[in-house]
Amino acid sequence: MSGNDLLLKAFKQTKYQLSGHGVRDIQTLKKAFEHYRDEQESDMYGKGKIIEEFQEKMANYLGKESAVFFPSGTMAQQIALRIWCDRKELKKVAYHPLCHLEIHEQDGLKKLHHIEPILLADKDSVIQLEDIVNMKEEIACLLLELPQREIGGQLPDSKTLESISSYCREKGIKLHLDGARLFEILPFYQKSAAEICALFDSVYVSFYKGIGGIAGAILAGEKDFIEESKIWKRRHGGDLISLYPYIVSADYYFNQRIHKMVQYFEEAKELAHLFNQCNMVSTRPIEPVSNMFHVHFSLPKEKMEPILADLYHETGIGLTSYVREIDSDECYYELSIGDQFADVPKEKLKQVFQLLDEKMREQQ
Amino acid sequence: MSGNDLLLKAFKQTKYQLSGHGVRDIQTLKKAFEHYRDEQESDMYGKGKIIEEFQEKMANYLGKESAVFFPSGTMAQQIALRIWCDRKELKKVAYHPLCHLEIHEQDGLKKLHHIEPILLADKDSVIQLEDIVNMKEEIACLLLELPQREIGGQLPDSKTLESISSYCREKGIKLHLDGARLFEILPFYQKSAAEICALFDSVYVSFYKGIGGIAGAILAGEKDFIEESKIWKRRHGGDLISLYPYIVSADYYFNQRIHKMVQYFEEAKELAHLFNQCNMVSTRPIEPVSNMFHVHFSLPKEKMEPILADLYHETGIGLTSYVREIDSDECYYELSIGDQFADVPKEKLKQVFQLLDEKMREQQ
Repeated sequence: MSGNDLLLKAFKQTKYQLSGHGVRDIQTLKKAFEHYRDEQESDMYGKGKIIEEFQEKMANYLGKESAVFFPSGTMAQQIALRIWCDRKELKKVAYHPLCHLEIHEQDGLKKLHHIEPILLADKDSVIQLEDIVNMKEEIACLLLELPQREIGGQLPDSKTLESISSYCREKGIKLHLDGARLFEILPFYQKSAAEICALFDSVYVSFYKGIGGIAGAILAGEKDFIEESKIWKRRHGGDLISLYPYIVSADYYFNQRIHKMVQYFEEAKELAHLFNQCNMVSTRPIEPVSNMFHVHFSLPKEKMEPILADLYHETGIGLTSYVREIDSDECYYELSIGDQFADVPKEKLKQVFQLLDEKMREQQ
Repeated sequence: MSGNDLLLKAFKQTKYQLSGHGVRDIQTLKKAFEHYRDEQESDMYGKGKIIEEFQEKMANYLGKESAVFFPSGTMAQQIALRIWCDRKELKKVAYHPLCHLEIHEQDGLKKLHHIEPILLADKDSVIQLEDIVNMKEEIACLLLELPQREIGGQLPDSKTLESISSYCREKGIKLHLDGARLFEILPFYQKSAAEICALFDSVYVSFYKGIGGIAGAILAGEKDFIEESKIWKRRHGGDLISLYPYIVSADYYFNQRIHKMVQYFEEAKELAHLFNQCNMVSTRPIEPVSNMFHVHFSLPKEKMEPILADLYHETGIGLTSYVREIDSDECYYELSIGDQFADVPKEKLKQVFQLLDEKMREQQ
């Protein structure tokens, strides 16, 4: 059996897992629909109570005039950038080198919209005001991802955010928020979603990260912007006759979990601390600013996989189903706190980190 | 109350309806999931048992090497045409003037893919071989919609289909099937889906027309074509983390209804005959070739709406929730036979057509 398979198999046999909300199975959908009236009519190509009410709820929550439900963030964000580019008649935007649009979308932004991105900041840092001020080229829109997922979920401080927002407004640059994990960062900033979103012209949020829904996204902004995005939603093939399977579950799990974001954040800090006390283990960031962080092991992937698998067998606790290679001496995985962490007995937690520390020491 | 609202309200109060499978409500989803194991894991960005098994099932059914599930036909078809255009390095296709891509997609094909369509045939007829032979311009792909929905669901005969397919192969033109209603036309051609699809290079089918699922589509063709379409699916924002709400329901209702297509076809012919016996009422086509047809009334919309509303009140049977204006003397609606027709008592059916005929005579 390969190291990948060995680790995945061992993970699936564990009783407790440190991160996430649990397996993404059919039950996720069934639970959301359990208390929903059978007679509730489907949405119909973006119209109807079921979609309109949720859109209005999210527009209010995000403090924006209007909102529209999209099947995916990939679609929502490309469209947001396209609209801002069209308005300025300039097909240039700027974002982080590890932006979702740059590394996970098969170049949809370039292939479908012919928009050229300027990559800002070093890939290991978040975008700062000077990165924007020093930019040589004119752009229509700047995209900020909060938190910057691919580097463990890092954030600029409030002051930086505010100064970037002011600068963009002054220069006529539209500011778009990739808020895939917006709900998860509110406890760190100690601000409401509306307060954060007020700094941005358009905002995307996702419902299957911290919220744990099935799929789907909201794009929010001014009314004319949202109306235009609906036309593009149809062009992309996202104006489905029925989106309610995603809407009902988004709404259900939003209500279930939006108040748990403070808890997830506190637990992430507690857990990162435990990792950082182990030999040859460190988290990125050292102190989390949301419910997520990356765990780095100073060992090659091939060595780390059997160590973790053994740890799972001995403790019944699963840390991760995979590790990714960074180089021949280091590997890492991504962790997001969800409902499962609270279920892990504290004694068990202590045991697993003691054992991890021992196993890593043996490798030195 | 407007005529629109009056008719819709009266329709919603009827006990029986002549067409469709019934209201599109939450129950549609719940029913499909009822017997589905809770522990069945979600698909994950196009991978996993739940999506792979259904794709393979549909590839087999359609007689194609490979198939991929899409959230919408809009997305699937634009992508199919894009791939064929890219391969020939020629951004020109041909289709009917009332093709879905031309009239229902906000010009996605042009705005996202910069593909120019040549419109073939008069809008009131289906495409014939000579329309293609007489075409002055070179094209990469020809799209045929079977049946041609916007003109009541008309079809070319088998010989025409075969001759178009041979001609396209000879000339190096790729032939794409808009099979949104492919299942529904098999009884007319008395052929299997695979036999029809063998004439085409790529095929799209839908799961919320005759099948009555929630949403979703399959695109089928050769393996390399389908693999390429998956890259475009991600670019369009259609590669959702979970598509299972649509897949489970597509599979469930496919199994429930695929064998009923003969029944729907026979019932459509019976029902069209009843309409055509009424004064100032005619169907298009006169004799249906699938489960669908259009019903034309030789009266202005404003006059027809209260007549239908009265008919519903008096009989408890609903014909349609809307009529659309053609000109100041004529209006029409579209009808697709589903599960509901079989529930209408034969006596009631007789009564409603007698009464409709009388009411129309009074208008002369």
